[in-house]
Amino acid sequence: MIDAISFKDKTLHYIDQRFLPLQEKYVATQDYKEAIEAIKTLAVRGAPLIGVAAAYTIMLGINSFNGTKEEFPSFFKSLVAEVEASRPTAVNLFFAAARMKKVYDENFEADTIEVLFAKMNEAASKIHADEIANCDAMSRHGVDQIKIDLAEILKTRKLNVLTHCNTGTLACCGTGSALGVIRLAWQEGLIERVITAESRPLLQGLRLTAWELQQDGIPFVSISDSSSAFLMQRGMIDFGIVGADRIAANGDSANKIGTCAHAISLYHHKLPFYIAAPVSTIDITIPDGTHIPIEERNADELRTIFGTQVATPTTPVLNYAFDVTPSYLIRGIITDKKAVVGNYVEGLAALM
Amino acid sequence: MIDAISFKDKTLHYIDQRFLPLQEKYVATQDYKEAIEAIKTLAVRGAPLIGVAAAYTIMLGINSFNGTKEEFPSFFKSLVAEVEASRPTAVNLFFAAARMKKVYDENFEADTIEVLFAKMNEAASKIHADEIANCDAMSRHGVDQIKIDLAEILKTRKLNVLTHCNTGTLACCGTGSALGVIRLAWQEGLIERVITAESRPLLQGLRLTAWELQQDGIPFVSISDSSSAFLMQRGMIDFGIVGADRIAANGDSANKIGTCAHAISLYHHKLPFYIAAPVSTIDITIPDGTHIPIEERNADELRTIFGTQVATPTTPVLNYAFDVTPSYLIRGIITDKKAVVGNYVEGLAALM
Repeated sequence: MIDAISFKDKTLHYIDQRFLPLQEKYVATQDYKEAIEAIKTLAVRGAPLIGVAAAYTIMLGINSFNGTKEEFPSFFKSLVAEVEASRPTAVNLFFAAARMKKVYDENFEADTIEVLFAKMNEAASKIHADEIANCDAMSRHGVDQIKIDLAEILKTRKLNVLTHCNTGTLACCGTGSALGVIRLAWQEGLIERVITAESRPLLQGLRLTAWELQQDGIPFVSISDSSSAFLMQRGMIDFGIVGADRIAANGDSANKIGTCAHAISLYHHKLPFYIAAPVSTIDITIPDGTHIPIEERNADELRTIFGTQVATPTTPVLNYAFDVTPSYLIRGIITDKKAVVGNYVEGLAALM
Repeated sequence: MIDAISFKDKTLHYIDQRFLPLQEKYVATQDYKEAIEAIKTLAVRGAPLIGVAAAYTIMLGINSFNGTKEEFPSFFKSLVAEVEASRPTAVNLFFAAARMKKVYDENFEADTIEVLFAKMNEAASKIHADEIANCDAMSRHGVDQIKIDLAEILKTRKLNVLTHCNTGTLACCGTGSALGVIRLAWQEGLIERVITAESRPLLQGLRLTAWELQQDGIPFVSISDSSSAFLMQRGMIDFGIVGADRIAANGDSANKIGTCAHAISLYHHKLPFYIAAPVSTIDITIPDGTHIPIEERNADELRTIFGTQVATPTTPVLNYAFDVTPSYLIRGIITDKKAVVGNYVEGLAALM
């Protein structure tokens, strides 16, 4: 597996995802301004990965500081504000910044600046390590659940799994959420082939997931999103697994547009469908999916494709970024703590 | 409504569909070789329209003939062979050529060459007129069926209709099959808005259907194919209607990839789904959809989009051109003879 992000010798290393899969452009920088630009321009993307990038960006900023201890508080404050402004809708960025601020708040008075910086560096590494551990835990719980649910098929053959969008190391740092489960299942010999839906409009499935699977040598095939139902009809898909952006208390799950269509087709064909997402994705304050606001994105995401105009600039377009899959279509929600099946209201509340 | 194809003063007029919707390039030609090139290069496309184009192309060839009556049979034979070779998988092309050959066979001996040519010209016009009449008949039967099935909603408001791919005048010459029904329904005040799914990989919905609707001033919005399920969940779609490439004796219908996914989502949300297609689409010799061979098209249709490379050239892709929607998902099959609902085995057989 490739390393989407890392921090060594005070240097941030990342792969510029805008050029994938056609160009593998690895960037190394000690300049926090450059790292902020990478977050702004989506060179780094994916909720957990943005959090890790934010923590390391704060460390780059701190490492560039050469003032006195007295001068540090105001420097740190404006640094954090600058990082937070780089992508104001990314909650993981704020979670990461909050964890860094906490270390500062708790240690600034007592420690020398060197000791403080070392503790903050440790905190940034911990944020990264936690994401990797989350992926490993989700993968384990997911594979265990699949082994139970698909035991009958597994007696005679391996499984074909459908996934959507990108939920791998490019999004999550570790092995991924849904893609982490798929990776581990493949390592354990359960997977015949991965079917990756291209994920219009931005084609993360065709571009990023396909690229990750190719790197790992995991057999896969890319399809147009609307082909999945027909593959199910032909017996070419055994189950589906995707990530989530937000999960309501009753298990209704918001994820990349197209997820709900796959889920309905899987349900129609009596095939299990799973969500894999860390506990931090669950918003227990929201009773159900109707309370999740759905972002409408720029119409040009459909009207132009990577710079090529395909429809007229005046073609009216409705471009929802996400959809909400009702929980009754979901066989299980795989978290880093456990796989929740059955009663989501009780099961998800118990995780909190 | 624009005129996708016409024949006046020994001149074939057509719109070069390859440039739509960004450029409206109308072509006029008296050269049958140029017309053959237009069929070959998909400048003209859509099953019924290709048939009409083939008939007119044969007329262009005939009009260029200036030999004796004795020389005509060999000229005509090679002309027809050349036209048939322009798109060997298009059955409508062969239907049209057969109708032209029949006129030749039945009249060559008795008529002067001038009278024969006049009869053949009449036959070509009749092929075109028949397609237009087919569209009008389908539209009428379709609208009548919709008025019955959606009577409850129509008491209080207009309807939102989902369609897929292009089934309008650009494909059918007349008002279209599914799009013909939609056009008439709109004229009769039944339609609030058309939702046109973009139809990956070749985007006929986003490009061609959107363009036709824009020409006619019918309110519409384009969506990514996988959004349709979510729009249904939100109550933004009342029914779906599409065309068909081939219909089996039991009503199973092959159509552009993605159709089956929409049909499953409509069924799941208890919304009616219709197929609109002329009787010539029904293949009564095929008992069900499993006997319909499904073409797999070039992987580059997904890997590149209008010349722009989006995935690596080695990304494995499965690109089915069509899918098959099982008949139990279909509320009605709208033909030029009547709308068939209920028992398709009996209903379709009765049409033959």
